[in-house]
Amino acid sequence: MAAAFDGAGDLKVIAFDIFGTVVDWHGGIKAEVERMLPGIDGGAFALAWRAGYQPAMKGVMARIAAGEGGFTLLDELHMGILDQVLRDFGVAELDAARRKELNTAWHRLPAWPDAVAGLTRLKRKYIICTLSNGNIGLLTEMAKRAGLPWDCVLSAEVFKAYKPDPRTYLGVAGVFDVTPGQVMLAAAHHDDLAAARGCGLRSGYIERPLEFGADKPKDVSPQAENSLHARDIGVLADLLGC
Amino acid sequence: MAAAFDGAGDLKVIAFDIFGTVVDWHGGIKAEVERMLPGIDGGAFALAWRAGYQPAMKGVMARIAAGEGGFTLLDELHMGILDQVLRDFGVAELDAARRKELNTAWHRLPAWPDAVAGLTRLKRKYIICTLSNGNIGLLTEMAKRAGLPWDCVLSAEVFKAYKPDPRTYLGVAGVFDVTPGQVMLAAAHHDDLAAARGCGLRSGYIERPLEFGADKPKDVSPQAENSLHARDIGVLADLLGC
Repeated sequence: MAAAFDGAGDLKVIAFDIFGTVVDWHGGIKAEVERMLPGIDGGAFALAWRAGYQPAMKGVMARIAAGEGGFTLLDELHMGILDQVLRDFGVAELDAARRKELNTAWHRLPAWPDAVAGLTRLKRKYIICTLSNGNIGLLTEMAKRAGLPWDCVLSAEVFKAYKPDPRTYLGVAGVFDVTPGQVMLAAAHHDDLAAARGCGLRSGYIERPLEFGADKPKDVSPQAENSLHARDIGVLADLLGC
Repeated sequence: MAAAFDGAGDLKVIAFDIFGTVVDWHGGIKAEVERMLPGIDGGAFALAWRAGYQPAMKGVMARIAAGEGGFTLLDELHMGILDQVLRDFGVAELDAARRKELNTAWHRLPAWPDAVAGLTRLKRKYIICTLSNGNIGLLTEMAKRAGLPWDCVLSAEVFKAYKPDPRTYLGVAGVFDVTPGQVMLAAAHHDDLAAARGCGLRSGYIERPLEFGADKPKDVSPQAENSLHARDIGVLADLLGC
């Protein structure tokens, strides 16, 4: 479905959410878990690891708000969750080096099949960047490996604030000296897009029905509030005339 | 001249200084000044603008140290210097829009002829990033226009500290979770390289004899302290086996 979109001529920057939107975290983590931990259900492990993310992030934000903690890289957050998930899945023996290797599976996630070609088209007309709570190193290694042609890697780590903090969305506009309305967030998550819209950004929804695996298809119904609704990044490029 | 270099196998990241090292600020500013301000000596204007940079940067650092000011983007610093240089060159009439257009000439600087090909070779084996006091938006627009294939744009703006503050050099190692010795700074300026070495980074000197224009050739003699000395970025790629 292609929502009408007026005023694309003024758009300068498209910032992409990453996990689920540009890369397939479920498929990537599942494959790495099954490679490194034979006998473990990789899909269930991936879901458990990702499910730990929101509570862990809320904990970090609460500690920062209380003046008890500083900014934490997603790699560290992932490692803390991994320790718990390994216990929950009954994996007792995994030395520090192997644990780190597994934790950096998030650096090696595969791009969705449409991502590289779609981004390459969008890049001709717009500045394209990441806007993720992933740390810069993670996002850079992922891009290098998957061939994601970002003009620039922006992250919570740059703004020292996590999405959905307005400093992240408005930070993108600040970096490029444009108005919030000249920036679009592209994401597979309506809550992220709503927060961006709250800051004056445009919002482009990308359908990713298999984000949680083939067994758990996701509702990808359009929401009228979004500026655009696209089946994938190639369709986003079509809609934006690239 | 190719200095011996042991231990390149352990190197992971090459961070590049930008102004003078990767792009030709003198040639770029000269051309834009002569386009926008006919009758003005573009080369002299470029030298005056650049000469204002060190004092302005020192002023910012002193204000930050005294708790009287925050981090300032290079674009803002350039604009402050530009106002003075325009007065010094007797240019009274230049409206805000034209002044901003001239100020963003720093976003449009041309790469040295060897830069894109050399970086493309280095990128196959190493993570390549910027490490400049230029702001992220400036560096990103420059890269997009000139085709500089950075894996990631790092800047004083990311670390909220300016070179030669150790937080910038050590910040690169931190971002990629490597030791300082796994990072090389490549720069056309011995003082920048010395500061990086002081933090444990390797240092690669790039000759840029014409940095200040053809009329003011620069001494590009090797200094033994540098890990590598290369005529240009292509030769750096040769020396590193790319």
